[in-house]
Amino acid sequence: MGVTIRKIAQDLNLAISTVSKALRDSHEISPETKARVFEYAAKMNYTPNPYASSLKGRKSGNIAVVVPEVSDTFFAEAIDGIEEVAQLNGYHVMIYLTHEDVVQEQSIIREFGNGRVDGVLISIAASTSPADHLRDLKIPMVFFDRVCEDIPTTRVVTNDYESGYYAAKHLIGRGCKRLAFLSAYGDLSIIRHRQEGYSKALDEYGVERENCLTVQCTNEENENLKILRGLLEGKNRPDAIIGSVEKVTMHAYTACHTLNLSIPYDVKIIGFSHLQIASLLNPSLTTITQPAYEMGKAAASALFKALAKKNFDLKDEQIVIPSMLVERTSTR
Amino acid sequence: MGVTIRKIAQDLNLAISTVSKALRDSHEISPETKARVFEYAAKMNYTPNPYASSLKGRKSGNIAVVVPEVSDTFFAEAIDGIEEVAQLNGYHVMIYLTHEDVVQEQSIIREFGNGRVDGVLISIAASTSPADHLRDLKIPMVFFDRVCEDIPTTRVVTNDYESGYYAAKHLIGRGCKRLAFLSAYGDLSIIRHRQEGYSKALDEYGVERENCLTVQCTNEENENLKILRGLLEGKNRPDAIIGSVEKVTMHAYTACHTLNLSIPYDVKIIGFSHLQIASLLNPSLTTITQPAYEMGKAAASALFKALAKKNFDLKDEQIVIPSMLVERTSTR
Repeated sequence: MGVTIRKIAQDLNLAISTVSKALRDSHEISPETKARVFEYAAKMNYTPNPYASSLKGRKSGNIAVVVPEVSDTFFAEAIDGIEEVAQLNGYHVMIYLTHEDVVQEQSIIREFGNGRVDGVLISIAASTSPADHLRDLKIPMVFFDRVCEDIPTTRVVTNDYESGYYAAKHLIGRGCKRLAFLSAYGDLSIIRHRQEGYSKALDEYGVERENCLTVQCTNEENENLKILRGLLEGKNRPDAIIGSVEKVTMHAYTACHTLNLSIPYDVKIIGFSHLQIASLLNPSLTTITQPAYEMGKAAASALFKALAKKNFDLKDEQIVIPSMLVERTSTR
Repeated sequence: MGVTIRKIAQDLNLAISTVSKALRDSHEISPETKARVFEYAAKMNYTPNPYASSLKGRKSGNIAVVVPEVSDTFFAEAIDGIEEVAQLNGYHVMIYLTHEDVVQEQSIIREFGNGRVDGVLISIAASTSPADHLRDLKIPMVFFDRVCEDIPTTRVVTNDYESGYYAAKHLIGRGCKRLAFLSAYGDLSIIRHRQEGYSKALDEYGVERENCLTVQCTNEENENLKILRGLLEGKNRPDAIIGSVEKVTMHAYTACHTLNLSIPYDVKIIGFSHLQIASLLNPSLTTITQPAYEMGKAAASALFKALAKKNFDLKDEQIVIPSMLVERTSTR
């Protein structure tokens, strides 16, 4: 084994991605850095990763990423993590959107039979219940974030249960007594786990359950605004809201703005979100920030490890990368 | 020609996409609506669009969308528009990201030779200067937003020049005298046009040019924050900022927050952006809102029109869909 990109990066004290980009003559890298990298690579007799190249020669050189949408910042960021690993391995990434539609997802998966892609990374549509189309796939598949827990392969997730628990605990610590949980895509295991964590915290801290509603939201903004208006204008208005996904959290903000309810004085809000501009919102939003980039990287790494073997064996295991609670003004 | 989805939609007073989804039994559509659609389609002897089906049988059934990134809300929304048209035509959409890297873009385009996709929709990387890899493509290609103006095919754009002009005029009307233009990806024609419109307004309204800087930003947040700090802490601080893309506009917000500058009292800000939550920012952001969804739809429609013909002929024409200026607090 000769010198690797990793070794060059270490020796020159640069990021791996910087070295990779420099070697591909990317415009993102300064001419000085490129010169340093080229010179050192030549000196060390660097040749491109033979394992990646041989894989590429043998197969399609493509992996597929199947996600519900890209307008959620979680998926946009996870894809960036996936692409970083794919590029290091000399692979192209093709992204397919299901728009939460299981028929669409089945139809996409059917495409993968004939050598079009070497492997699949998938975050399932909310409506994926009987997941037979995923069970019979003949190429390596890794789940990330939204997983099918009963399909024996590698699943990269975050600690949803604990995150739901800590979100509720945080609000209870701020004196909240009427915590609403905005659910979405009710049949997804990750949302269920977040809600179970929330329920656990309510019980543990003796919060009166009849004051704490779980509200089922939809994929439609107008529908959700109607639901939220009902919730916020009813008597026994919640003094805290947990948004289980970014979209419904933003809808809760809009509803509060429309109804002239002050966040955090009338209602405190915390959201599961990867929004980079959470700190620029009015007010800045307390988030459970999922490690989207790292989850994408971990999922892609597991896939490429499997692709490196002749008979791929993806372990039936769950890789858990924890989320972070970032306190901002919305729960102050 | 039998009954079409469009006809069914008209007769039942539903959106075309609703009918399309109902016919594919999507979970997004209510059982009642599905029943109505199925019943009516059966009564009218509806059969799926023969043109779409024949196309699908003949070729790959895929189109490719090549964009710089998906974390910009413009592209996320444009892709939604593209997908709507593709689904109506029975096509799958594969999305490829270039990360502003021309080498990556070339390598992706090379993949398209062997019948993998039937057509390409592309918004070019900022570093795409000698666009030979796009010139020799043997399948139909339509540009949207970021175009190569000298390649003879259909280009779907927005009115960038006028939008830059109106953004500057709006700020001048608010009493601003020192307008900074935050450029990005300097070699892109769309950014150049926005800047030319801004310059034109400065001249027309007799604003002193030496007080109005064009500042070249980068793709890196930290780098941009340094640049913006220099700009905002220097003497002759701008009283208005035009962000030529969403990312640098958000960086301008962050810089003002960090430096405790009040928006809009110290600095007014307007940004080219498609951010759905612009109204939830602190303060809400005045935007030049590009018709991302419509641009995606128009580009896809032009492509499918070409695919319907044996010898595709995409007109060498520019389709211009205008942007909107949406006034919010940041320029009040």
